[in-house]
Amino acid sequence: MNEFQLIHRLTRNLPANASVLVGAGDDCAVLDLGMGERVVLFKTDAVVEGIHFTPETPPEKIGRKALARCLSDIAAMAGTPTAAVVTIGLPQRFEPAFVEKIYAVLNALARQHEVAIVGGETTTNPERILISVALLGTVARGKTVLRSGAQVGDALFVTGELGGSLLAKHLDFEPRLAEARWLAEHFKVHAMLDVSDGLAGDLRHLLDASGVGAELLKSAVPISRAAKEIAKKGDAAKPAFVAALTDGEDFELLFTVAGKTAVPLLDAWQKKFPALKLSCIGKIVATEGITLRDGLGTRSLSAQGYVHFS
Amino acid sequence: MNEFQLIHRLTRNLPANASVLVGAGDDCAVLDLGMGERVVLFKTDAVVEGIHFTPETPPEKIGRKALARCLSDIAAMAGTPTAAVVTIGLPQRFEPAFVEKIYAVLNALARQHEVAIVGGETTTNPERILISVALLGTVARGKTVLRSGAQVGDALFVTGELGGSLLAKHLDFEPRLAEARWLAEHFKVHAMLDVSDGLAGDLRHLLDASGVGAELLKSAVPISRAAKEIAKKGDAAKPAFVAALTDGEDFELLFTVAGKTAVPLLDAWQKKFPALKLSCIGKIVATEGITLRDGLGTRSLSAQGYVHFS
Repeated sequence: MNEFQLIHRLTRNLPANASVLVGAGDDCAVLDLGMGERVVLFKTDAVVEGIHFTPETPPEKIGRKALARCLSDIAAMAGTPTAAVVTIGLPQRFEPAFVEKIYAVLNALARQHEVAIVGGETTTNPERILISVALLGTVARGKTVLRSGAQVGDALFVTGELGGSLLAKHLDFEPRLAEARWLAEHFKVHAMLDVSDGLAGDLRHLLDASGVGAELLKSAVPISRAAKEIAKKGDAAKPAFVAALTDGEDFELLFTVAGKTAVPLLDAWQKKFPALKLSCIGKIVATEGITLRDGLGTRSLSAQGYVHFS
Repeated sequence: MNEFQLIHRLTRNLPANASVLVGAGDDCAVLDLGMGERVVLFKTDAVVEGIHFTPETPPEKIGRKALARCLSDIAAMAGTPTAAVVTIGLPQRFEPAFVEKIYAVLNALARQHEVAIVGGETTTNPERILISVALLGTVARGKTVLRSGAQVGDALFVTGELGGSLLAKHLDFEPRLAEARWLAEHFKVHAMLDVSDGLAGDLRHLLDASGVGAELLKSAVPISRAAKEIAKKGDAAKPAFVAALTDGEDFELLFTVAGKTAVPLLDAWQKKFPALKLSCIGKIVATEGITLRDGLGTRSLSAQGYVHFS
């Protein structure tokens, strides 16, 4: 049983109550705690030594990544992060200076986004460091952007460049908080998520939640320099385009707006965020699944994200 | 460096913002998210195989304990729990049925207290199971009970019985949510926390936060049957009274009210909660530290919780 199958089984019949507007399954839960104009976003995420970072990863990068992943999920809801609690599991013999460095950079990223760190826990996890962050945020009532709102005819956008993240970016990425809030404020964003599992996998999550399909334009998918560099490393290396589809840990925004909004959005974006690429990579269609279009015609993407000709 | 020293270093200069009413250091953080009459409580807690439960602990008990510990912290603030996210770290080869049992009982406890489970994460933690829960709750603005409000002359109370929790209770305890809310609604509770590190240690936390001391009446401290049973196991066994002071994981409420309130409170409690013992175990005094009074006179408790004659 893989992670997604397990999650499916565990989330089938979760306890709910009147406060739950959106439960498990989107980038964040959305709760109505009686705040009037705003609703609460709630998210948790963990990083584990040997899985999300290595024993050689500098402590500053570990702390940064632990919080940045959660911030990226608040961004995916067009929200504003407010407060976090941080749990750290440590081997019994730890170096205090190492742990302080983890927190120093986590705290610096928190300050940058005006997030309060309001508690947490230290516990023993003898074999490896584990950091679990839970983050609260808020968003204006009725302005939450879910995964499930994509409509046939929508244009599909992605920020930044994709693939090759494990070379460096997965430890240094900028959560797209300001960009997401600007998008939701100035345009009607139909659906959005952050690309953490790879474009092919996360686009499928968005399509499944919305009950639609997508046609991707191959030449429009922004491929990172890192993915291109890795691809040059020999015949066994992953082709750069496949890396852009499947590598994961990009933490870019993937979202849809009505097709007629695409050009005004691109114009306004380039004025507002000239340093960050925004790419229209395709459109939402009625037929389920993902179709890839290039100069030779169309093919379909398998559920695993790899490319099969059709 | 021990856990408390590390926490002290890590919490010296945490990022804050205007939403923070109470940051790290109490049983929960208290946040003002603009909800009018209510404020938000935020808490996280983790349990780790080999530390908080053993490889032989039934999965039902693991899941229950993971959530119950957080619920006990919401109780300590006289709050109402609302929604939780649950992260579970699992060895790569896990039995799905085992994990489902963990969640089934966690979910049942959540339903019992009308708590929604709104998300979480599964991750790999190769050597041992780890569960991290983050819990949100609410409490009426101005009704939050902190650790820092104890006043000289207060009567000191504890619910239930103390010591010997590791024999069974640490996996089966009832978070005192209803009791704490009733207390805060009907009496002016000056200070409260839940006893997780042992009466001697947690009382010291309350006293340090309040800048006062306490005199404990030895004969009034309620000793659990489990602690008494363990004490009978030979000369090397921990004396039952020492167990009641130092064992930890009792998850009972420790609180203070004005001295003149003590008798009416005991009367009202016995009518409302006849099945749960409430004990007045001493009083708050101006001299810092903990003094123990018995038929022979008074002694002081060391910072480690063990008894030294003075």
